[in-house]
Amino acid sequence: MIHVGVLASGNGTDLQSIIDASERKMIDAKVAVVISDNPQAYALERAKKHLIPFEIVEQKEKKREDIDTEITRILKNHNVDLVVGAGYMRILSKGFVKEWYGRLINIHPALLPSFKGTNGQHDALLYGVKITGCTTHFMDEEMDHGPIILQAAVKILPDDDQESLAKRILQVEHQILPRSIQLFAQHRLTIKGRCVQIKPGDSWADMYKLIPEVLYAEGY
Amino acid sequence: MIHVGVLASGNGTDLQSIIDASERKMIDAKVAVVISDNPQAYALERAKKHLIPFEIVEQKEKKREDIDTEITRILKNHNVDLVVGAGYMRILSKGFVKEWYGRLINIHPALLPSFKGTNGQHDALLYGVKITGCTTHFMDEEMDHGPIILQAAVKILPDDDQESLAKRILQVEHQILPRSIQLFAQHRLTIKGRCVQIKPGDSWADMYKLIPEVLYAEGY
Repeated sequence: MIHVGVLASGNGTDLQSIIDASERKMIDAKVAVVISDNPQAYALERAKKHLIPFEIVEQKEKKREDIDTEITRILKNHNVDLVVGAGYMRILSKGFVKEWYGRLINIHPALLPSFKGTNGQHDALLYGVKITGCTTHFMDEEMDHGPIILQAAVKILPDDDQESLAKRILQVEHQILPRSIQLFAQHRLTIKGRCVQIKPGDSWADMYKLIPEVLYAEGY
Repeated sequence: MIHVGVLASGNGTDLQSIIDASERKMIDAKVAVVISDNPQAYALERAKKHLIPFEIVEQKEKKREDIDTEITRILKNHNVDLVVGAGYMRILSKGFVKEWYGRLINIHPALLPSFKGTNGQHDALLYGVKITGCTTHFMDEEMDHGPIILQAAVKILPDDDQESLAKRILQVEHQILPRSIQLFAQHRLTIKGRCVQIKPGDSWADMYKLIPEVLYAEGY
């Protein structure tokens, strides 16, 4: 059973997907601590509700390095094996990313390398792509750039606006994020340069009712 | 029945997919002329074999504008309604793109805007994505950039090399390219800024035996 530390700034639906998968024993992982920069984050309410320890690390007038040292201290106090950025809206320091490299993953609402940044769904709509999706990846020093774990492709529909598209992508995020954590917990992920090799084993079709009209790719 | 002019530099399998769809009456279009910069292009052999007029426009020591004026002259001689870049390895002049805008489409072996350029499959493998694909789009002045018509997403498999991946993507290209031509022939494509709206009608599932494990998106 691995210990997961979750960094979140907002509503925390990605966090909820991990909590749910954990409580339903679909993943060999539990959320050991939730850390937020935002005292108002609804993610913290979710932690409370599920009796998960949480900490607020406020950011104002502090150096990024000092904030991240504090975060690392909290994560280590909770024996965290894997750190998950789940809608964490702060840039992490190089030192933090280096310290946790290979044990620090992120989820992004687009098919990377397309539409990096804070508004992946909106940018995809503006660009006029017909297919977008979501990506989990190990974080490196560059934003939305590190080795890709899983991707899933989602169609854009003619009447989509940012809200409807974001909602459909979130539905898939809530499958690929716990699934990525499970692959990590099962020691099935190997980083080779920019590529993540996945050892064959059970598939996420065994875990989830996969959504039709979505292309899932585990790459094995 | 629209007249299609095809620009090709190489093997011409995309050209062949158009010829086949036309001969099988799957599209309301026929290839009126094939133009190549390369006298050795196998695409020219395909044209000969199917009794399609072809022209070689050699490029050395000529200005790009003069070459493209010559190409436009040939296209007009053959009453071309739609120009298709199918593996044409030359950059088209701004004047040419402007003259044919909205009647000039291209196919690219990646999910644009990811992996623009001449080696989309290779670049996707190097980057370590789990999902890539292909895109048809109206050409504009920027390379691999104009409004997207159709996309299809293809998984990358663990043992893929550039050849095996290119082969699987090509299989899908040979569906989305004739399909895009048919949507054009049926007057179902409307460019709105960067987005291509597609009027509902028959679907490509009616035309093609769609490949399982590929996510097709017509955006309607």
